Amino acid sequence: MSLPERTVARLSEFRRVLLDCLSKGQTHIFSHELASLNHITAVQVRRDMMLMGFTSMQRKGYNIKELISAIGELLDTTEGLNVAVVGVGNLGRAITRYFRGKRSKLNIVATLDVDEEKVGQMIGGVRCYHMSEVVPLIKKLNISIAILTVPPEYARSTAELLAQHGIKGILNFTTMPLNMPQDVHLEEFDMITSLEKVAYFVKRELERTKP
Amino acid sequence: MSLPERTVARLSEFRRVLLDCLSKGQTHIFSHELASLNHITAVQVRRDMMLMGFTSMQRKGYNIKELISAIGELLDTTEGLNVAVVGVGNLGRAITRYFRGKRSKLNIVATLDVDEEKVGQMIGGVRCYHMSEVVPLIKKLNISIAILTVPPEYARSTAELLAQHGIKGILNFTTMPLNMPQDVHLEEFDMITSLEKVAYFVKRELERTKP
Repeated sequence: MSLPERTVARLSEFRRVLLDCLSKGQTHIFSHELASLNHITAVQVRRDMMLMGFTSMQRKGYNIKELISAIGELLDTTEGLNVAVVGVGNLGRAITRYFRGKRSKLNIVATLDVDEEKVGQMIGGVRCYHMSEVVPLIKKLNISIAILTVPPEYARSTAELLAQHGIKGILNFTTMPLNMPQDVHLEEFDMITSLEKVAYFVKRELERTKP
Repeated sequence: MSLPERTVARLSEFRRVLLDCLSKGQTHIFSHELASLNHITAVQVRRDMMLMGFTSMQRKGYNIKELISAIGELLDTTEGLNVAVVGVGNLGRAITRYFRGKRSKLNIVATLDVDEEKVGQMIGGVRCYHMSEVVPLIKKLNISIAILTVPPEYARSTAELLAQHGIKGILNFTTMPLNMPQDVHLEEFDMITSLEKVAYFVKRELERTKP
């Protein structure tokens, strides 16, 4: 059974909040507390718990450590998955540094670029390879996920190449929407759309409160 | 009337796709083409067009230029909105450079940090100010939107400060979920959740195809 996409996203968000609670010495949490920290309803939290088969609610609430480890069993692979950052501009560089060490089960093992000057450099502790090496590299380093940060005009051709050679998941940071075969999971990550959404609602709020 | 959040997001995505079509010399587009480029149904496209009051469908499809300008009228403000990037680490730096010039109606007018060494520098062409100046700066530069890229432990206190002093929209790039008052539009932008979602579906796909 595969969990719904939105449940998966929420479990990942729950885990982050739970790790934060744990680091502050909290041991148990009620569904309504977890709900409020994630801006959703307690009903939704309990539904997600049911979907993941986590039922050990106690009088004091959920045991935080148990819940974190149950989420880990669902989301993490035992061996971990290897990730490549494809395109080392400002964004690719920042993302490599940002992700590094954040989740031990997802390892960024390579960065790739066409710029000869970057090839051989260490980007956030990860070696940069030339794009022409990508096909053998996917096999050699057992890479299954790509974070795509190439210029938008190269996004489609690069994603197709990656999908043809064994990449099973793409996190698309370019502004170009992609079409992927069914067996490749695509997550579009569009910063401009997010900023435009904020701007739309800000504009309306400013109009509403205009004297 | 305020458009639903998802419609606003789709209009922003439509515009990007339409600008791309226009740059390739295309003048008209059918709803099913626009739908397929955005991975949604033609019914959804036509519903969004109806919601935004765009009805001028012709025999050749929608006129691309007209549609782009209709979306612009909805999403953009005539005077533009001013944006600050709060927190100039790797990510803040990359985002400033990334957004710069991408949408002329949204102007990044300031970056802010607590690091004295960064203060006074130009980050992607935008001056860096000290965080202690943030309150007068919001007024002086008429800033209504903040892109939040501070370390997670400072996310909540910083967001509260911003909301108290006139910021109406926050794009949260930190891993800390936020709670904002109703009149502040919050967009959470969580890269780790996106990567974990990809990883979950990749893991399942790998298990499914395991020999």
